Amino acid sequence: MSASVFEDPWLSGLFGDDEIAAIWSHRARLAHMLAFEVAWSRALGSVGLAEAGAAEEAAAAILATRVDDDAIRAGTARDGVPVPALVRALRAEAGAGPVHDGATSQDVIDTALALTLKATSDLVAARLIRLGQALEALDARFGHVPLMGRTRMQAATEISAGDRIASWRLPLEDHADRLRVLRPRIECVQVGGAAGDRRALGRHAQAVTDHVADSLGLAATARAWHARRDGVAEFAGFLSLVTGTLGKIGQDIALMAELGDIALSGGGGSSSMPHKQNPVLAELLVTLARFNAVQLSGMHQALVHEQERSGAAWMLEWMILPQMASAAARALAAGITLIESVVRIADFPAAESRGREE
Amino acid sequence: MSASVFEDPWLSGLFGDDEIAAIWSHRARLAHMLAFEVAWSRALGSVGLAEAGAAEEAAAAILATRVDDDAIRAGTARDGVPVPALVRALRAEAGAGPVHDGATSQDVIDTALALTLKATSDLVAARLIRLGQALEALDARFGHVPLMGRTRMQAATEISAGDRIASWRLPLEDHADRLRVLRPRIECVQVGGAAGDRRALGRHAQAVTDHVADSLGLAATARAWHARRDGVAEFAGFLSLVTGTLGKIGQDIALMAELGDIALSGGGGSSSMPHKQNPVLAELLVTLARFNAVQLSGMHQALVHEQERSGAAWMLEWMILPQMASAAARALAAGITLIESVVRIADFPAAESRGREE
Amino acid sequence: MSASVFEDPWLSGLFGDDEIAAIWSHRARLAHMLAFEVAWSRALGSVGLAEAGAAEEAAAAILATRVDDDAIRAGTARDGVPVPALVRALRAEAGAGPVHDGATSQDVIDTALALTLKATSDLVAARLIRLGQALEALDARFGHVPLMGRTRMQAATEISAGDRIASWRLPLEDHADRLRVLRPRIECVQVGGAAGDRRALGRHAQAVTDHVADSLGLAATARAWHARRDGVAEFAGFLSLVTGTLGKIGQDIALMAELGDIALSGGGGSSSMPHKQNPVLAELLVTLARFNAVQLSGMHQALVHEQERSGAAWMLEWMILPQMASAAARALAAGITLIESVVRIADFPAAESRGREE
Amino acid sequence: MSASVFEDPWLSGLFGDDEIAAIWSHRARLAHMLAFEVAWSRALGSVGLAEAGAAEEAAAAILATRVDDDAIRAGTARDGVPVPALVRALRAEAGAGPVHDGATSQDVIDTALALTLKATSDLVAARLIRLGQALEALDARFGHVPLMGRTRMQAATEISAGDRIASWRLPLEDHADRLRVLRPRIECVQVGGAAGDRRALGRHAQAVTDHVADSLGLAATARAWHARRDGVAEFAGFLSLVTGTLGKIGQDIALMAELGDIALSGGGGSSSMPHKQNPVLAELLVTLARFNAVQLSGMHQALVHEQERSGAAWMLEWMILPQMASAAARALAAGITLIESVVRIADFPAAESRGREE
Repeated sequence: MSASVFEDPWLSGLFGDDEIAAIWSHRARLAHMLAFEVAWSRALGSVGLAEAGAAEEAAAAILATRVDDDAIRAGTARDGVPVPALVRALRAEAGAGPVHDGATSQDVIDTALALTLKATSDLVAARLIRLGQALEALDARFGHVPLMGRTRMQAATEISAGDRIASWRLPLEDHADRLRVLRPRIECVQVGGAAGDRRALGRHAQAVTDHVADSLGLAATARAWHARRDGVAEFAGFLSLVTGTLGKIGQDIALMAELGDIALSGGGGSSSMPHKQNPVLAELLVTLARFNAVQLSGMHQALVHEQERSGAAWMLEWMILPQMASAAARALAAGITLIESVVRIADFPAAESRGREE
Repeated sequence: MSASVFEDPWLSGLFGDDEIAAIWSHRARLAHMLAFEVAWSRALGSVGLAEAGAAEEAAAAILATRVDDDAIRAGTARDGVPVPALVRALRAEAGAGPVHDGATSQDVIDTALALTLKATSDLVAARLIRLGQALEALDARFGHVPLMGRTRMQAATEISAGDRIASWRLPLEDHADRLRVLRPRIECVQVGGAAGDRRALGRHAQAVTDHVADSLGLAATARAWHARRDGVAEFAGFLSLVTGTLGKIGQDIALMAELGDIALSGGGGSSSMPHKQNPVLAELLVTLARFNAVQLSGMHQALVHEQERSGAAWMLEWMILPQMASAAARALAAGITLIESVVRIADFPAAESRGREE
Repeated sequence: MSASVFEDPWLSGLFGDDEIAAIWSHRARLAHMLAFEVAWSRALGSVGLAEAGAAEEAAAAILATRVDDDAIRAGTARDGVPVPALVRALRAEAGAGPVHDGATSQDVIDTALALTLKATSDLVAARLIRLGQALEALDARFGHVPLMGRTRMQAATEISAGDRIASWRLPLEDHADRLRVLRPRIECVQVGGAAGDRRALGRHAQAVTDHVADSLGLAATARAWHARRDGVAEFAGFLSLVTGTLGKIGQDIALMAELGDIALSGGGGSSSMPHKQNPVLAELLVTLARFNAVQLSGMHQALVHEQERSGAAWMLEWMILPQMASAAARALAAGITLIESVVRIADFPAAESRGREE
Repeated sequence: MSASVFEDPWLSGLFGDDEIAAIWSHRARLAHMLAFEVAWSRALGSVGLAEAGAAEEAAAAILATRVDDDAIRAGTARDGVPVPALVRALRAEAGAGPVHDGATSQDVIDTALALTLKATSDLVAARLIRLGQALEALDARFGHVPLMGRTRMQAATEISAGDRIASWRLPLEDHADRLRVLRPRIECVQVGGAAGDRRALGRHAQAVTDHVADSLGLAATARAWHARRDGVAEFAGFLSLVTGTLGKIGQDIALMAELGDIALSGGGGSSSMPHKQNPVLAELLVTLARFNAVQLSGMHQALVHEQERSGAAWMLEWMILPQMASAAARALAAGITLIESVVRIADFPAAESRGREE
């Protein structure tokens, strides 16, 4: 096992998800950073802050640069951020062409983050739909089955399986709405320059910003958002609401498995009791929900982002947000698999009589 | 000092806020519960589940009941929830009239919560506007003043005070939008009955629900929301986004006070150094932001709400949400006071030269 | 309901505990502060920093002062801490006698805290013993009973009830050890003066410190601990370990109740289903465990206590630590009651056959 | 960037630490698991539960097995734990020899964890000493220098640099004591078998346990600790106390850097302002402290570990504990580097006069 369950050679089989891993991979994020720098050079050319031909040559040079990860790693150790070393490498290729002029590290990293969050949102939105469909199909199959309703860890009165499934499915529509509404708040270009006021761009600041935004498929912004992190924290909260909903599903299914109210295909084996069918994915959903609930606290601590740029608060986001996205994507995938693995809900004599006698 | 800074005889002077205290007071919440029971009795009469005159008499009896807090306290100790004892008391007054028939504890408490959250949202929305106005006024007075921009705890380049104030003010509009969008998701009546399926109400379930919702000024619901807590958790996240924004303001102002970039009227005295002017409210904003960031984790843990009603997860909300609302309301009030207490920002020689020499 | 479940007129029946409430009450903590000031005045007299008679008169005046809570509350709102207003009141009574000279707010509040933690530790230590005895008695009654062992929410192999009870009981001895070892680290006098270096006391600093410590029954200290909060955070961690152990007990018992493996006397009633026996105290233990697990994060955030005194970090402790102590004391009391309410564990045919068939 | 800053090709330059990475690496942990299985086979032979020659052959086969990570990964996805697939692979090599008989997954993983924690503790203990030495050296160089004491973000009275350094150094001795006392509670073999009662080992249970413990250099245990996680949570708390102390150091130094009270060699460059010297390591210490404070909450949530084995709670530990150890080790290393990089503290006219005039 390594420090991260998402990347451990063994545990990634359980916690990992190829699609979200690709979105948050080093390579994908590097590609976003280079896309920013290319767009930036071209924007400088387009507004006349650089000569157009030189700008285009710089853009070409950026795209052709072979980044030496070890050099950037060493630079990150020194500077606290990979961008200065990356820019040095790009400038070495670009010669006299304009590279990164008037931009700053945070512009690169936060704009790349916006692109990563955009891809994450696409994935999450698609999986929310698929999870909803899986739950609809489950409801179609088993919704009519009588199930003992249970309140405060006690049998209450008989409900239908559909009643419980509804409590799993209804939040999904609201989650989709939440995502739709918050996406425009984070899919925005970050342009601030050294201290966030875009001063180095002079009267061309908005034009450069618009150009870069347009190239990257992000919304333009009238001001830097580098020091206000509410959009990022809100996104983290959304991810945790999603994993929380899945955590409830997982907890319910694990309890149903223990009470004999459900049967699942697949399910985990034991090294000492080969006959057991552990509801591994149901447990995983609980784990991922509690994990994101914990992490969310850190994203909100990072809202206390002092002055024009807080290295401390920003780095805290780096440590946490990728994991929250990974956990949410995995929870959605595991939830879909779990729901599709249900082969029976309740409706056998023992369970009912057991419920009723209590 | 007592267990709660919001109610301690001394510390409530710093942490307390009369308006939010009134909204979350025992009396206000009892009034919401009784309003629910009154509406419920009348709804039963209105749809024909009870005789109309008896229903009206029950409603009148509920309103006339003098609740014995000690008896309810003892009942809560026994039942884990105040409602059974409360209902007993109401029924003792109401004679044969219909009281609480077909409802359950969670219907009462969660509907009362929706009313409390509605009042909380009104207060927060109004204060967000006032805080925005205070920041606008601050910007009008000092926005043009040059200020050393500071990134990663180092002087960067000169910006204007208005640039920093913008990073404080811009999130407020988004907060107002967030609140507007999420309010309909929580200002909803909760009607579920024993196990959440409204079965005891038979074919009148929706009519009863609509009637109660209408009486209380809440939205009607097609299903119980007792076991899906995403709305409540989302509201908690909103509160923490607000305190986070204020925490950044507080941290910035505390640092400005330490760096000599700001002067505040008022400010705390020291028992050993009477000459000091501590930026107490600025510190308080940081405290409240970190507090809510911590608490939010618990509200998301409570999303793992098993089966038809989780006593454990539900009680966790009771412990946390009132405090988050109290902290948010106090932070808004303290933030307004703090902003209005600014008597100078930067622009004196010493500060600038100090910044520049670094 | 009010902002704090510990003090709410109804919910305190469930969450409250008279003994811990007395320990953390406003009155008890005021008494500790006054005891500090009395000891301080006498220490100044004893080392010759004040005239002995005047010091004794000051001590007498402090003890005779009737504190006006409203005035202190107003002072707290202004100063961020109650001590300046309190000291003004004491000095008004003490005339020319030495009051608080050379001390600072934090000396008073943190020394009072040490006394409060001492009383808390006494209570917790006593209850850990009683809980251990209750578990021993439970083991004596039911330890031999066969019980289905359950791993990963599935029946595994038969164990004995004693095996499960052992997993509840064994941590208690370690908790007692932990408490014994950490108590000396927090039951220490705090003496720092204005900026923590005890300078105002000159060459008498250690003698004054020793005198005050001795009077109050605390350990003396060679240096102020005002800005190092590891002792307080460690104590919070201890409290959360205790509630975590009880949370496991509660979760196990709630599951046993749901599975029919246990019967409890008492237990909560429902407003809609009078026949139900909800395992309220078991759920409460889970709630309190998760609550303290959440809060602990805040106590560790408060370790980042900047410079010679961080108002922001210190106030965060004020908001959290009293609640953690209250939760731990209540969990211990509820755990003892719960264990003593067990009237049956397993050993009836249905449960065993149900387990085995899985 | 990838999901984990500890393993990202770039960010690991800042967040990573080779020594702790080796301790928590997949390879090291696999080696611990194999060591457990080897010791287990030999123990079975030694007590007569298996034929001695066969046991030794099994041990040899285990050591010779080439583990196919992909197969284990697939097994983990299915079983929720890597051990069943690993045991299948080992048994395929070992032929008729006794492999894992009477043990269960948790025995392997938790015993391996105990070995990993032992190595972690060795590393942390050594670094605590080195950090103490660095602080002593710093004190020797600069302890006498006058420094403006600062309370509540305001200049208070002049102290010495040594006073502040003392608040950084004093907790280290207590941390060393804490670690010494808690190590015996976690450096213990875990032996439980299927449901934790060691039943499959019959009357040889203790002898097998002792043998395995002795082989691995761990303490023997009279009972399984699989379902009581207080030792692991306590260790996590210790790690967060350490990072908290370093977070205070980092926050103080970052503020000193901003106030001009300190000069550091090295320090981070900016992509837009090449003249800047960002106190990157000081910020990193704050980040790591807040990160661990967040994570600790999750380790305490995992104390609610239901029944004989909670997959959900256990997996939560897997997600969090390795990161906390990585953060603590990195914080110690970064702290040592940072302290050694101090080239000046205060004592230049501007800083003093600035402080005094306030």
